[in-house]
Amino acid sequence: MPKIVNHQKRKEQLAEAAWRVIRREGLEGLSVRRVADEAGMSLGSLRHYFDTHAELLAFSMRLVSQRVNERIEQLPFTGDARRDIEMIIAQLLPLDEQRLAEAELWLAFAGKAISDPAIRKMSLEMHDELYNGFRRMIDSLILNKLAKDGIDAEQETKELHALVDGLAVHRATFPERVREDDLMRIVSHHLNRLFKN
Amino acid sequence: MPKIVNHQKRKEQLAEAAWRVIRREGLEGLSVRRVADEAGMSLGSLRHYFDTHAELLAFSMRLVSQRVNERIEQLPFTGDARRDIEMIIAQLLPLDEQRLAEAELWLAFAGKAISDPAIRKMSLEMHDELYNGFRRMIDSLILNKLAKDGIDAEQETKELHALVDGLAVHRATFPERVREDDLMRIVSHHLNRLFKN
Repeated sequence: MPKIVNHQKRKEQLAEAAWRVIRREGLEGLSVRRVADEAGMSLGSLRHYFDTHAELLAFSMRLVSQRVNERIEQLPFTGDARRDIEMIIAQLLPLDEQRLAEAELWLAFAGKAISDPAIRKMSLEMHDELYNGFRRMIDSLILNKLAKDGIDAEQETKELHALVDGLAVHRATFPERVREDDLMRIVSHHLNRLFKN
Repeated sequence: MPKIVNHQKRKEQLAEAAWRVIRREGLEGLSVRRVADEAGMSLGSLRHYFDTHAELLAFSMRLVSQRVNERIEQLPFTGDARRDIEMIIAQLLPLDEQRLAEAELWLAFAGKAISDPAIRKMSLEMHDELYNGFRRMIDSLILNKLAKDGIDAEQETKELHALVDGLAVHRATFPERVREDDLMRIVSHHLNRLFKN
């Protein structure tokens, strides 16, 4: 493996160790020392990849979005707008262990975004990326004349975005209250109302 | 003022000082010493009201729900189901400084609920209380034959609950992205779909 690839791969392994620390102990449990321990690496070796706590945190947060985007790019799109939209949204909801981890991390970041300006800035990037994704879905429904007449793309996007994030928070935090099969059933029911009959 | 009332009032003032610390510094910034400082009280005096950090935190979390409930009980209900439901939901969304504080606190608690069992337990109580409130709204629509035929009360409740919490998170965290007047417009648009035409 070329050295540059190995370097990137090692950074991702350290970010995944950071994810485990955050999920177990919350964001305030995160320190470069804890992550080095979690990854079975010396603090000196970790410093070869991340100079500061802030760099490690920023990389770990961005890797969450990157993993979601990679999965979405690899989806077997069908050209059927309804099925394609449901496939994308399913990648954003905690429907397996990987997606549960992402939802828990997103919630930990959101919970600190108000009191921590650096986390807020990165959370806003994630928020905007998601918003833009939902907006493209709604715009494609309108463009392809699949949406009910007269729908307001901006309002519908904000509603769908809030619904999906709210469902992810509820399922990640209270799995005994919101079942896994509730998630796509509720999303699908919501989409029914946007599509022409 | 009788001593017992004074005692309760002082506890609420300390909880409000705890809210300010949590909003400014996050939940991990909370300590009995920080709250005593914030309230301009000695640590010894604070201990007269709360023995432990856990007691102070539990009281502060429960006071959030209690304040929301008090406001809802005092609403000038009209008997018009649509207007009454919108009035209640408006009390749950960050539409003024008090409600913004509540949304920020709720988000800070939710962000720690996954990694902290005590916070999780109290967050679940808040979640259930809200769920039950939304369920009563949906049930009353069905009972009064105002809802569209064939709606599933449990699924509709979960959807409305996720939508309102998602909107509260978005507005509290990214006020530059979700405007204040988006909130009730989106809720009202969603309710339109539940009501018979």
